[in-house]
Amino acid sequence: MIRSLAIGQISLGTGQYRYPLWPPLTEGCPRSSTSEIAYPLTVDYDYSRVSAGLFDQPALPGLDRWTPLLPPLDERLALGEGGTALIPLEGGAGGWDGRLYIKDESRNPTWSHKDRLNRCAVSAAALSGSAGVVVASSGNHAGSAAAYAARAGLPCVALVSAGAPLEVQAWIRSYGAVVLQVEREARWSVMRQIVRQLGYHPVSNLTEGGHTGHPFGPEGYKSIAYELFLQLGRRPPAAVFVPTGYGELLFGVWKGFAELQRLGLSPTVPRMFACEPAARAPLFQALAQGRPVAAVPARPTRAVSIATTVSGYRALLAVQESGGWAIRVTDADLVASREGLARAGIWAELSAAAGLAGCRLALDQGERFDGPVVCISTASGFKRWADGSGAKPAPQVSDDLFEINRVLRSHYGLDV
Amino acid sequence: MIRSLAIGQISLGTGQYRYPLWPPLTEGCPRSSTSEIAYPLTVDYDYSRVSAGLFDQPALPGLDRWTPLLPPLDERLALGEGGTALIPLEGGAGGWDGRLYIKDESRNPTWSHKDRLNRCAVSAAALSGSAGVVVASSGNHAGSAAAYAARAGLPCVALVSAGAPLEVQAWIRSYGAVVLQVEREARWSVMRQIVRQLGYHPVSNLTEGGHTGHPFGPEGYKSIAYELFLQLGRRPPAAVFVPTGYGELLFGVWKGFAELQRLGLSPTVPRMFACEPAARAPLFQALAQGRPVAAVPARPTRAVSIATTVSGYRALLAVQESGGWAIRVTDADLVASREGLARAGIWAELSAAAGLAGCRLALDQGERFDGPVVCISTASGFKRWADGSGAKPAPQVSDDLFEINRVLRSHYGLDV
Repeated sequence: MIRSLAIGQISLGTGQYRYPLWPPLTEGCPRSSTSEIAYPLTVDYDYSRVSAGLFDQPALPGLDRWTPLLPPLDERLALGEGGTALIPLEGGAGGWDGRLYIKDESRNPTWSHKDRLNRCAVSAAALSGSAGVVVASSGNHAGSAAAYAARAGLPCVALVSAGAPLEVQAWIRSYGAVVLQVEREARWSVMRQIVRQLGYHPVSNLTEGGHTGHPFGPEGYKSIAYELFLQLGRRPPAAVFVPTGYGELLFGVWKGFAELQRLGLSPTVPRMFACEPAARAPLFQALAQGRPVAAVPARPTRAVSIATTVSGYRALLAVQESGGWAIRVTDADLVASREGLARAGIWAELSAAAGLAGCRLALDQGERFDGPVVCISTASGFKRWADGSGAKPAPQVSDDLFEINRVLRSHYGLDV
Repeated sequence: MIRSLAIGQISLGTGQYRYPLWPPLTEGCPRSSTSEIAYPLTVDYDYSRVSAGLFDQPALPGLDRWTPLLPPLDERLALGEGGTALIPLEGGAGGWDGRLYIKDESRNPTWSHKDRLNRCAVSAAALSGSAGVVVASSGNHAGSAAAYAARAGLPCVALVSAGAPLEVQAWIRSYGAVVLQVEREARWSVMRQIVRQLGYHPVSNLTEGGHTGHPFGPEGYKSIAYELFLQLGRRPPAAVFVPTGYGELLFGVWKGFAELQRLGLSPTVPRMFACEPAARAPLFQALAQGRPVAAVPARPTRAVSIATTVSGYRALLAVQESGGWAIRVTDADLVASREGLARAGIWAELSAAAGLAGCRLALDQGERFDGPVVCISTASGFKRWADGSGAKPAPQVSDDLFEINRVLRSHYGLDV
């Protein structure tokens, strides 16, 4: 049997303090954290024991194949997460003639990237004998956590933003989860109470002083880097554009590429670009001000799934280490890129179009890349579908030829 | 470059009449069809030229890898369709201790099995220089056709059932398709007018005398058989349970396994079970009456995506040749199986749960199988989500501990 080579947790903050692998430190590094920031932790591995054959099989679904480089997985929870398609986009945007690809994360078990995280974080809950799972989320994270909790046979409490769409609530509830609507400001307090009182395992962030999150969760996103490396013919892309809220996805993808370099498989690490809603963009602010984290007012944006008011320290590290940057995309940019994706056959959630939107802005501003570029599309357009596309019904026609022609002409301008 | 080995079309009706590969005969076999039935056609290949190495790579996304055994594909349309996960279901249903698997077709580009069909059928439209694509569908087929038409740069007219949910309409429209609501009875007439007047290529059925469909479409479903063969360790399952309307999916999967047997790779072909809504079940009636097709009244059922009133001759062939049968599942069976899937981490459209529902009924009735059994789950629960799960909002709570406890206890019976 293949086993995880995880050997402990390391603080990402100053000092690189080491801790045992268990329990996952979900409230940040006890030693390096300050009143301003709770430094997150990451998982360390015995890299000297990684078999060269690990990267020989193509990019199939199922995180289990990456077991040596992931925290311990509960194998009963396997839903064939990952192994998502890489889809070429026609033509170069902004006059750039390099290859542009979309990594379509809507092809996961619950139709977003979050399944890669929850396979790891809910495994931690199950393997540590937790009484249940608790998650606070605007949607994708909660639905995914609920699915894995159901498979683990664990109860799940999902705290969703007040006013979350009914289809999102129905989806989370379908897996048997308890859904509660909570005001954004109250969710960390409610979550901590459920952790402490019910003994539930938190699979999303618990801390208010910057984002900490579950140390095992972002490890799942490393598999995106491994897959991209294989899908591009055993080479890394030149750049990756990532829809960014707290930046766990951004960090995980970067870490995966950094590991490939460390293992001698990849000569370089791609430049990582965080694509944030322009109305908030706390990471952009932290980078611009040279601070580890930043907080911003909750200005309105339709990019609900990445609309965070505090930045994640993980994201800052990934951007700085890779020579990338944070790009601010407006709601109008998102709508245009979402439409561009749909015209290429990919219907994305509005927030999921941030990767392509950021890439277009970068190319417009003259950025060029020495190799293929990947934009991650994080979730299906069915998530919050009414946000981007309007909810009007189509015209109804009988089988009268004259009427059909009239409708095709008048409503759609079709030349009949 | 790998090329298609397709060499012509053969009538599935009496006589096995042969026709050239082009144009696809979308109105059935001109010679064997009668006033009662328009016999569909299927694609023939030069099987002697299939390379043994074709089945060496694991079950990756992308139909292109099966190019030799598919009708000609337009490679620009690739969306990484197929390569879907096979997920084990815990425990034997009905006291049966064999292995049960779910083939999760919600992991396709537009989150249903239909992408495998449309990759082939829309390729035919693009390669034959059609002016556009027209499709009549309750939802999944239209959304998928619209995505591939968008990728092909072809206009698409989608005729949806009157009253189709707004999220389904928005989804289809997102790809740039023209959406028209049409009464069920009028759709074939409207479709024929668009084919004749606009020169659009029909990718769904055109004929009222039994279902004919696009001869190239079901070929895409053969890839499910190829994948299952590889995913189960180069052996076929003992039985496959398939949600069935017209039965193109059922036929395609059966044909794929029959080809594996013909090529000397698989010793047997699995028994194919058609799982139909009990309220209609035209295939069951055709089988029981020993007739090639049957028509039934449009009695109400919530299984909208498989609620056909006429059976497909393709389905009859697949069931008879493989020693299977048609199983009638009630709406209550579907709701229970949909819940069973969700508890295993898979949220399915109500119609998509018909495979598992049929399998449970078969096991309850004492059927046993000499090997693994596969139930196909055709589409994501986001398709027609309100049909199966209710649309009530979750309770809202503040961060008051007493209130949280009260809600968890009173609404959810959670012991806190």
